[in-house]
Amino acid sequence: MNTLGRLFRVTTWGESHGPALGAVVDGCPAGLPLSEDDVQRELDRRRPGQSGVSTPRSERDRVEILSGVHEGRTLGTPISMIVWNEDVDSSKYEPIRTRPRPGHADVTYRWKYGHVDYRGGGRASGRTTVGIVMGGAVAKKLLREAPSNDPLGIEIVGHVVRVGSVEADPGDLSAEEIMQYAESNPVRCADPDAAEEMLGEIERARENGDSVGGTIEVIAENVPPGLGDPVFGRLDGELAGALMNIPAVKAVEVGSGVRCSEMHGSEHNDPIWWDGHPVVDGDNSGGVLGGISHGGRLVVRVHVKPTPSVSVPQRTVDLESEEEVEIEVEGRHDPCICPRAVPVAESVVAIVLADAVLRAGYVNPDSVELPAASVEDRWRTLKRHL
Amino acid sequence: MNTLGRLFRVTTWGESHGPALGAVVDGCPAGLPLSEDDVQRELDRRRPGQSGVSTPRSERDRVEILSGVHEGRTLGTPISMIVWNEDVDSSKYEPIRTRPRPGHADVTYRWKYGHVDYRGGGRASGRTTVGIVMGGAVAKKLLREAPSNDPLGIEIVGHVVRVGSVEADPGDLSAEEIMQYAESNPVRCADPDAAEEMLGEIERARENGDSVGGTIEVIAENVPPGLGDPVFGRLDGELAGALMNIPAVKAVEVGSGVRCSEMHGSEHNDPIWWDGHPVVDGDNSGGVLGGISHGGRLVVRVHVKPTPSVSVPQRTVDLESEEEVEIEVEGRHDPCICPRAVPVAESVVAIVLADAVLRAGYVNPDSVELPAASVEDRWRTLKRHL
Amino acid sequence: MNTLGRLFRVTTWGESHGPALGAVVDGCPAGLPLSEDDVQRELDRRRPGQSGVSTPRSERDRVEILSGVHEGRTLGTPISMIVWNEDVDSSKYEPIRTRPRPGHADVTYRWKYGHVDYRGGGRASGRTTVGIVMGGAVAKKLLREAPSNDPLGIEIVGHVVRVGSVEADPGDLSAEEIMQYAESNPVRCADPDAAEEMLGEIERARENGDSVGGTIEVIAENVPPGLGDPVFGRLDGELAGALMNIPAVKAVEVGSGVRCSEMHGSEHNDPIWWDGHPVVDGDNSGGVLGGISHGGRLVVRVHVKPTPSVSVPQRTVDLESEEEVEIEVEGRHDPCICPRAVPVAESVVAIVLADAVLRAGYVNPDSVELPAASVEDRWRTLKRHL
Amino acid sequence: MNTLGRLFRVTTWGESHGPALGAVVDGCPAGLPLSEDDVQRELDRRRPGQSGVSTPRSERDRVEILSGVHEGRTLGTPISMIVWNEDVDSSKYEPIRTRPRPGHADVTYRWKYGHVDYRGGGRASGRTTVGIVMGGAVAKKLLREAPSNDPLGIEIVGHVVRVGSVEADPGDLSAEEIMQYAESNPVRCADPDAAEEMLGEIERARENGDSVGGTIEVIAENVPPGLGDPVFGRLDGELAGALMNIPAVKAVEVGSGVRCSEMHGSEHNDPIWWDGHPVVDGDNSGGVLGGISHGGRLVVRVHVKPTPSVSVPQRTVDLESEEEVEIEVEGRHDPCICPRAVPVAESVVAIVLADAVLRAGYVNPDSVELPAASVEDRWRTLKRHL
Repeated sequence: MNTLGRLFRVTTWGESHGPALGAVVDGCPAGLPLSEDDVQRELDRRRPGQSGVSTPRSERDRVEILSGVHEGRTLGTPISMIVWNEDVDSSKYEPIRTRPRPGHADVTYRWKYGHVDYRGGGRASGRTTVGIVMGGAVAKKLLREAPSNDPLGIEIVGHVVRVGSVEADPGDLSAEEIMQYAESNPVRCADPDAAEEMLGEIERARENGDSVGGTIEVIAENVPPGLGDPVFGRLDGELAGALMNIPAVKAVEVGSGVRCSEMHGSEHNDPIWWDGHPVVDGDNSGGVLGGISHGGRLVVRVHVKPTPSVSVPQRTVDLESEEEVEIEVEGRHDPCICPRAVPVAESVVAIVLADAVLRAGYVNPDSVELPAASVEDRWRTLKRHL
Repeated sequence: MNTLGRLFRVTTWGESHGPALGAVVDGCPAGLPLSEDDVQRELDRRRPGQSGVSTPRSERDRVEILSGVHEGRTLGTPISMIVWNEDVDSSKYEPIRTRPRPGHADVTYRWKYGHVDYRGGGRASGRTTVGIVMGGAVAKKLLREAPSNDPLGIEIVGHVVRVGSVEADPGDLSAEEIMQYAESNPVRCADPDAAEEMLGEIERARENGDSVGGTIEVIAENVPPGLGDPVFGRLDGELAGALMNIPAVKAVEVGSGVRCSEMHGSEHNDPIWWDGHPVVDGDNSGGVLGGISHGGRLVVRVHVKPTPSVSVPQRTVDLESEEEVEIEVEGRHDPCICPRAVPVAESVVAIVLADAVLRAGYVNPDSVELPAASVEDRWRTLKRHL
Repeated sequence: MNTLGRLFRVTTWGESHGPALGAVVDGCPAGLPLSEDDVQRELDRRRPGQSGVSTPRSERDRVEILSGVHEGRTLGTPISMIVWNEDVDSSKYEPIRTRPRPGHADVTYRWKYGHVDYRGGGRASGRTTVGIVMGGAVAKKLLREAPSNDPLGIEIVGHVVRVGSVEADPGDLSAEEIMQYAESNPVRCADPDAAEEMLGEIERARENGDSVGGTIEVIAENVPPGLGDPVFGRLDGELAGALMNIPAVKAVEVGSGVRCSEMHGSEHNDPIWWDGHPVVDGDNSGGVLGGISHGGRLVVRVHVKPTPSVSVPQRTVDLESEEEVEIEVEGRHDPCICPRAVPVAESVVAIVLADAVLRAGYVNPDSVELPAASVEDRWRTLKRHL
Repeated sequence: MNTLGRLFRVTTWGESHGPALGAVVDGCPAGLPLSEDDVQRELDRRRPGQSGVSTPRSERDRVEILSGVHEGRTLGTPISMIVWNEDVDSSKYEPIRTRPRPGHADVTYRWKYGHVDYRGGGRASGRTTVGIVMGGAVAKKLLREAPSNDPLGIEIVGHVVRVGSVEADPGDLSAEEIMQYAESNPVRCADPDAAEEMLGEIERARENGDSVGGTIEVIAENVPPGLGDPVFGRLDGELAGALMNIPAVKAVEVGSGVRCSEMHGSEHNDPIWWDGHPVVDGDNSGGVLGGISHGGRLVVRVHVKPTPSVSVPQRTVDLESEEEVEIEVEGRHDPCICPRAVPVAESVVAIVLADAVLRAGYVNPDSVELPAASVEDRWRTLKRHL
């Protein structure tokens, strides 16, 4: 179950302290321009050590593309990408071999698999999101450049809207503006004042040997109408399921989200206007009605729990001695994972949308250059590749 | 995409005003006792007209089992169930043929499919949750009675914890107590005082020709450890994806949910105790760590938007004349769908868990009576059926 | 596992002597004209009692469409179809409750499920192919009429090419000619002389209380190039897997098939000509190279074992007494199932091709009328449905 | 669509002349002993240059395991395996850039993807079966050692039974004997006399610049009863579909296969004996009745077309000039691919069976050491890993 998607499928593999991590993207149409730089750019946004508020671990995370791309364009065959693990220090993890860290997957992996790689969290480590970001980079390229709507032009941007007690109020910004503001500070918050406060909140948590949670909003613009397959492949369902698969996410909202439960219908229903075609105006729906995109912008939020690795003492058990013990988790951890989780959340949205545009026929699943047309047209198009 | 699940698969079909609605459950192991009564009991909980706060539409919703059951036990083959539509009045829907109702899927189905059955919402109607409840009834039976842990004994119960401005505070109750309290009032709230207030809130919305949202919590007890397949088939991911597929749900929380974003790690991490095996104590995790169940109770919440069918005037467009118009939605609608959505949410959780217990090997996928053992053992077990 | 296909998915359900049999077709695009007559026509070809060489059982097999079609066109939602069982005589099957019939699934269903519906073969009965034929009828309609290539125009025809020792030599016929000749005799053989001999062969088997095997060839014309997804969703792979799922099929050939093992490369390679685009000339490839269709006609053959129900004495065991016994199978059985299996084999090919044309983008998966184009074009197209 | 299997899933990637080839095995239970040697042994059997009758290309094909294994045992997480490409000479392939080779996928990949990697056949090359063999090696280990039936003990062996006009008659041998005889000669034929003749047949083809086809039989012993999921996941259906996905395979037979079409029921039905449980005696069923294994040995055959790369002149077209031309394919090719395809066919059978034993509950999908039992039992078992 390490594969996300139906037509556009991302399979990730790798343990935190194993030799390497990777992703195989299957189902990306042929003809899409793709380079290692396209992927590296996104990996660099996820990389630790970008600022004082993330872990000082040094992970260069250089991607190599091993298949599926030839002469700078995708082949329609699986795109295999790899990142070698470096700077691995497994010595700190020896104590947790028998003492599961609270809030971590140590205890559940033990229940499920018996034999586990406890070093650095193994497969349950946040480090495995490297594979998601690699897959997301390909998805973003497809969503932006696939020449369906000449071109499709879907843009996805995430930003941090809460850290602990600090809530951002970035106002009414376009995706481009959010990107610009959010990428200019280390917490990736599009509200500069809140960003300062968030830095303080994170710093305080770190000083206390503690961590703090937060909220990420992801917006997608230029999403075409008709994406999503009711009743069990609804676009919001696919998004929620995929986003909740990101480690540490405990809640997913679409549009009005949790607030909907306090609203009246007359207030919640976004009105519909005419602009050559019907236009749903408002963010309550979050871009989706009946599980299908309506052509307006997509809005989702994920709530991310505080990093469970804290050095304050916690209660756990020693599995060998069967005694209850105290544990203080050592290691180099992010006191708030949200800033680095932004590209991960964007990537998950991108993969879900890439899958949905293929399923809805906006992009030809064989080749971004193929029209869904007659055999003659098809051949004429193909000839340009000789 | 009308199928939910991987090994335990529920496919639903049917339009609101078509001849019938149905579900096909594939992958249910053989040998499970199952009767139409088992399914009817759950359908009756979803049925409208149970009280003054739901729609006065009369839907008997009598289930017939057409396959997959023989002499009162499942066969391991697809279980086909059907409910015939009755009391269908399509006349009220003629106006919406060209005027999509705000907050409804009218506009998006038109975008996606072109040709739509607009009567009663067609396939996007909440009525299609009949199929989910039928599938959920089978899943509940399997989770409760399958003789894995002699027997498995998983119990699933949902209750309404918010309606508009009224929040319930039921205290620390067991699943059985929640069920008992919640089923004793028409809003399905386990806090009797709040239940009264909720009834008032719903009544006021109805009098205003309006509707109101709410929140449902679902709890599962006796969930065994080891369910869920990281990294893209995590139990919380599967739950979130499936629950968000329920019509009108806009947010899904697991455990601490949204609140996690305001917490510190030292506060969020549930401690681990020893009781013959490790026990995670607390509801912050919601029963899941690293996407895998830890053996404690499962807690999820869904936030349900107010029914979009309101008779107060709203802005929409006439697709034929391409003009912006006002619409007042007629029809017999629930002013708050939450009470009737409780069995739907329970059913979705049941289907996801049934799939997970099969995938984790707690129940033999062939037959609830088969051990995963030697050929000789297998045959001995089988002989009892002669 | 009662579902065939990835985008175009047919789920069948029903036992031979249960109340009904059915199929749910999910993923058929909206806007396709579809009536019960379209399905009935194919069911009638499968129906027993068409001639003296099939079983005298009387099965009217009248289809009802219960969902997914509105005003004569598909909705893009699941198409549920049902056939009620009639003329069921379960009394003959009491003896086989404990005595598995050789060549039947009696013994293996007992191994797998323990609790079985032995009446009429239950779920393993050839009668369950009713569901395949219903699904195939929808697929054929889509392949013939979907307006991709204005229209797609794919035609599928099957005919019997061997019964026991009699091999047909129909010569070089078009699909239309094969259909015409084959449908004019009760064995569905396109070679009239061989058809006569086949009738004799079948008659002799029946007189001996025995049965006889045979071979069916299915041809598809106007198959567009580019269908099939290497390396594990190859068109020939999908065809072989699906065809082998038909009860009684023991071998599947594509193009040259078994004969390829005796050939040299210089002889086997079909040459390529030019006709505005490359044209592969010859039937050795069977229409597929590297798992992808090349635009020429598709040729597959299935080899069907003799009906296992024979009244000559056979060795089996009594499961209750654990003794070896003799059994003579009573009942009304086809001495050669091939003629009635022709529409079943065609249906399977149709379902696989319908799935493949959707996956390859020849037909828009949302609606047969939707271009894969701009939002504006899409809306203009949709307006015609108002 | 580069993934085979449902629970035990093998995803392969890589082009013939790209940097590397790989496979990701997802769904293998934890706790299985696995080393690079286990995989290398199978790769060596597939490797070219083993004898005078295969290509002189030198491919060392050293596997590296990059994830999913820790301290010599599987983790239940994805097992990523890689083989770096060496000895790549792409210069010979420049001519085929515009001139599709008859019998190859050149023309169909062009149709489907437009942009193709024509070097060495790219993704359509037989070289990509390296990934299948790596996945098959893990499957074989699981089938042989998983401690279900203490242990499962399933053995899979393939051998060449025909090359061109030469048919083998190995007599009635056990799997172990077939393995022993077949591996002792370069054509992998278990009949030593026929092996000699086959060598001559292949040598003659090579001298003529031609190639020759052949047939491979694969046998699996100790297959437990109850594998396979009717009606669309039948064991024979899964086998046929997967085997037909092997490049160059044009026909698949199960048990009696093609011969069934000439037989009578009284002759085809394998009798059933009693040996503590029912035993189906004979190879006509090929180990499968009604799509479900009956506990006897599994017998399948694949027919492999002659290698399409022949240096005798053939007709094709030049896509650039749109003229019909002659082509003589240069390169270092196997005149008969059958001997090297034996481990590939075995691997496919192994992957399908591994998936089936997981689906049927013979092996716990989480861990080969976990009983499907109570929480207490589960924990006791897990403790041994501390």
